[in-house]
Amino acid sequence: MSKGLPDRNSDFSSWYTQVVNRAGLADYGPVKGTMVIKPYGFQLWENIKAAFDGMIKATGHVNAYFPLFIPKSFLAREAEHVEGFAKECAVVTHTRLKSDGENGIVVDPESKLEEEIIVRPTSETVIWSMYKKWIQSYRDLPILINQWANVVRWEMRTRLFLRTSEFLWQEGHTAHATEEEAQKETLDILELYRQLAEDYMAMPVFTGLKTESEKFAGADKTYCIEAMMGDKRALQAGTSHNLGQNFARAFEVTFQTKDNKEELVWATSWGVSTRLVGAVILTHGDDKGLRLPPKIAPIQVVVIPIYRNEDQEKIVKNYLVPIVESLENAGVRVHQDWTDNSPGFKFNEWEMKGVPLRMDVGPKDVENGNVVLARRDTGKKEFLSKDKVIEQVPELLDNIQEGLFQQALSFREENTHAVSSYDDFKKVIEEGGFVRSGWDGTEETEAKIKEETKATIRCIPFDENPKKLNCVYSGIPAKHEVIYAKAY
Amino acid sequence: MSKGLPDRNSDFSSWYTQVVNRAGLADYGPVKGTMVIKPYGFQLWENIKAAFDGMIKATGHVNAYFPLFIPKSFLAREAEHVEGFAKECAVVTHTRLKSDGENGIVVDPESKLEEEIIVRPTSETVIWSMYKKWIQSYRDLPILINQWANVVRWEMRTRLFLRTSEFLWQEGHTAHATEEEAQKETLDILELYRQLAEDYMAMPVFTGLKTESEKFAGADKTYCIEAMMGDKRALQAGTSHNLGQNFARAFEVTFQTKDNKEELVWATSWGVSTRLVGAVILTHGDDKGLRLPPKIAPIQVVVIPIYRNEDQEKIVKNYLVPIVESLENAGVRVHQDWTDNSPGFKFNEWEMKGVPLRMDVGPKDVENGNVVLARRDTGKKEFLSKDKVIEQVPELLDNIQEGLFQQALSFREENTHAVSSYDDFKKVIEEGGFVRSGWDGTEETEAKIKEETKATIRCIPFDENPKKLNCVYSGIPAKHEVIYAKAY
Repeated sequence: MSKGLPDRNSDFSSWYTQVVNRAGLADYGPVKGTMVIKPYGFQLWENIKAAFDGMIKATGHVNAYFPLFIPKSFLAREAEHVEGFAKECAVVTHTRLKSDGENGIVVDPESKLEEEIIVRPTSETVIWSMYKKWIQSYRDLPILINQWANVVRWEMRTRLFLRTSEFLWQEGHTAHATEEEAQKETLDILELYRQLAEDYMAMPVFTGLKTESEKFAGADKTYCIEAMMGDKRALQAGTSHNLGQNFARAFEVTFQTKDNKEELVWATSWGVSTRLVGAVILTHGDDKGLRLPPKIAPIQVVVIPIYRNEDQEKIVKNYLVPIVESLENAGVRVHQDWTDNSPGFKFNEWEMKGVPLRMDVGPKDVENGNVVLARRDTGKKEFLSKDKVIEQVPELLDNIQEGLFQQALSFREENTHAVSSYDDFKKVIEEGGFVRSGWDGTEETEAKIKEETKATIRCIPFDENPKKLNCVYSGIPAKHEVIYAKAY
Repeated sequence: MSKGLPDRNSDFSSWYTQVVNRAGLADYGPVKGTMVIKPYGFQLWENIKAAFDGMIKATGHVNAYFPLFIPKSFLAREAEHVEGFAKECAVVTHTRLKSDGENGIVVDPESKLEEEIIVRPTSETVIWSMYKKWIQSYRDLPILINQWANVVRWEMRTRLFLRTSEFLWQEGHTAHATEEEAQKETLDILELYRQLAEDYMAMPVFTGLKTESEKFAGADKTYCIEAMMGDKRALQAGTSHNLGQNFARAFEVTFQTKDNKEELVWATSWGVSTRLVGAVILTHGDDKGLRLPPKIAPIQVVVIPIYRNEDQEKIVKNYLVPIVESLENAGVRVHQDWTDNSPGFKFNEWEMKGVPLRMDVGPKDVENGNVVLARRDTGKKEFLSKDKVIEQVPELLDNIQEGLFQQALSFREENTHAVSSYDDFKKVIEEGGFVRSGWDGTEETEAKIKEETKATIRCIPFDENPKKLNCVYSGIPAKHEVIYAKAY
């Protein structure tokens, strides 16, 4: 059925690329490293976006928009920050083109900018330059702003959705009067990310703290959600940073406290990106293509009418009208495929596109008052009386949502190992999987492990229990229990 | 009440800038020409966006996302197009920063790009380079894609929302098998723009065709909606272009017709931008600040509780709970202002922010079972029994929506003149207003009028009636009846 979809087990990477292509999710843009998000992929992103936008608005956050362009000097103000982003910045230097006198177009050298401009790789610096204007007193706090935007981090080794020079994301940037409040915000957002991943994307995640060497450039602490993909590698799916007073210091943002003191403002920032679309594919995809969790699927039920002549077509069409209408009225996203293609072709196509439920209806079904429902997650087919459709379909969709989550959770559990030796550790990492074990807490150990195995510490999970554990590398008593894995 | 808002009549421009600032709509970004859209302004944009997004989805359009970056050579492929945008392009030339060896950061000269990259001023070229890959046969048509995105057109004379280097917009890019279909799409979208302007923004518009000299660089025909602002100048609020086969030709996009011929694809493009936020301010604002049409207002009803002590506060709060709840359940966007500021301060602030309805509630009102409603459009106040709130408020909001439209329409009608001589023409243009009169159809006349009066032909309205008219400039029989005005 997969018509030459590459084998997931032996060539996961080609399988991924093919699924992205054949399901109509994305394409490569003309400038190296860029991506075109096609309508079906974009709708998936819009659904993820709508879910999270609802969550943050319900918790008092508001959207705003800050400029794409950042003065070069701004980036340099926070030392670690510029260090982290300097090597992947798109730099604007000119503002005009002109004719070269023949048939070509050249950059007009006279339009050279005095100070070069950076296309935002992230917006802490430009936003904190504005917060300096907006914040004077504790009355101006907290500021709970988010923006949905494009950012650019120059990248040559493109993988659609996972690694592109430009990507879409949301970036929250909050300002607080106290350290406690900033820390609470950082963790509250991480919890929303967990809900987004687990409840909407059906993707189980570990939540925890990044090590010093893996944290965001400019943060005091970075928290993350980490998921296991279908090839047993880890994917960082979202990060929430406690920025301490680093950006307030860099941009001199102070406020007057209630008792008339002047203090630096406390900050957080947090983001998830179109990478989440990649995560959905990598988590749930199978040999036939995508499998989409119903809550974020652009189409939840695809209807395949089956007929051999115009009479049958008319009969099936009439039969479907009230069924589809009742589903749509119940908020179910339904698509009917009346194209000329054969039913077999359509089955394959919609399986590739990962639609959770397929509903086949032919003249026989009309006669019997049935529809045929085929689940994308299990492949199971069943007859259902048409009168039960409106009751059963939403239930089935919930069931698929839950089933996909459980399947991914079992997969992660089966492939997350405790190990008793470094040899075992290396074996797991090489064969694929997460290792959950002790770490002595030193950067040296972390670096050595990375060098020798390509595994990194994905996070120190909140539910760590380092007591009685030894470091898998140095053998000394563990300071933390951590999750190791090779990562995207 | 306006606390020094500049006089609208004598200094409309400063009035505008102050309203944008004091209503908390936007701010200047650090890079010259850029804008920060603050939460209140952004919510206004989000509401406009949601209205239009709903319209285009209901008519079969889908959203997608194309890259920010365009190879320089692409822009040059369509001659008029590059001519139109060459002088305002942000050009990316490098991709890395590095330390200058001391404390500074410089652009790494070794990261210079082989081909310079343009930050999209509009996306026809990058999108048609993709359509070339996606379109082979008539079966692939039509393509009805839209994207919500940021674009950059370098600009030094910034006016927030009206003229900024970067702005947000939607750009639709459709591909069709026939000329007729493309023309129909161009006009269908213009009609949606008219609905967006008139039914949501309460802003009456002229719809019509742009002259050759005013059309989009690369279009066969440009249609527009044109509105009159509070200073009697025109603002182009949206454009819909029939691109003919120009971009298909430039990017060699052909398709196989049903009868096996190969033909160039027909195209349209169309856009509205954050400029619409500026249009709302300029259309409806008054001496006290903004006046927002209820359908797009971030807050439709602001509640001002009035109390002198904690007891009263408690009483008012309890009284408000069911009232606010019932409004919110009815889909009304309500905000309660429980800040420490005085009622007078709050009245001014929310008038500045243009909230359509204010609801004042004090202990006296609780006693009498009333609320006080103050309309922002007329300033009228009335007592209303609390039991009538849920019935009356939605009606009042509809009433305000309609009232704002009618007021703007009357204003436009009063200030749109037929003239009998060029002297009269010049007088109207100088004193402010639209002239609706004859034009001989020559570019020379158009250019002369622009040179001598700064007025341009805003459009040839669909309901033109040039018979019996003479050209206001040359005196010869008119080819078209047109709308002349000075424009933003």
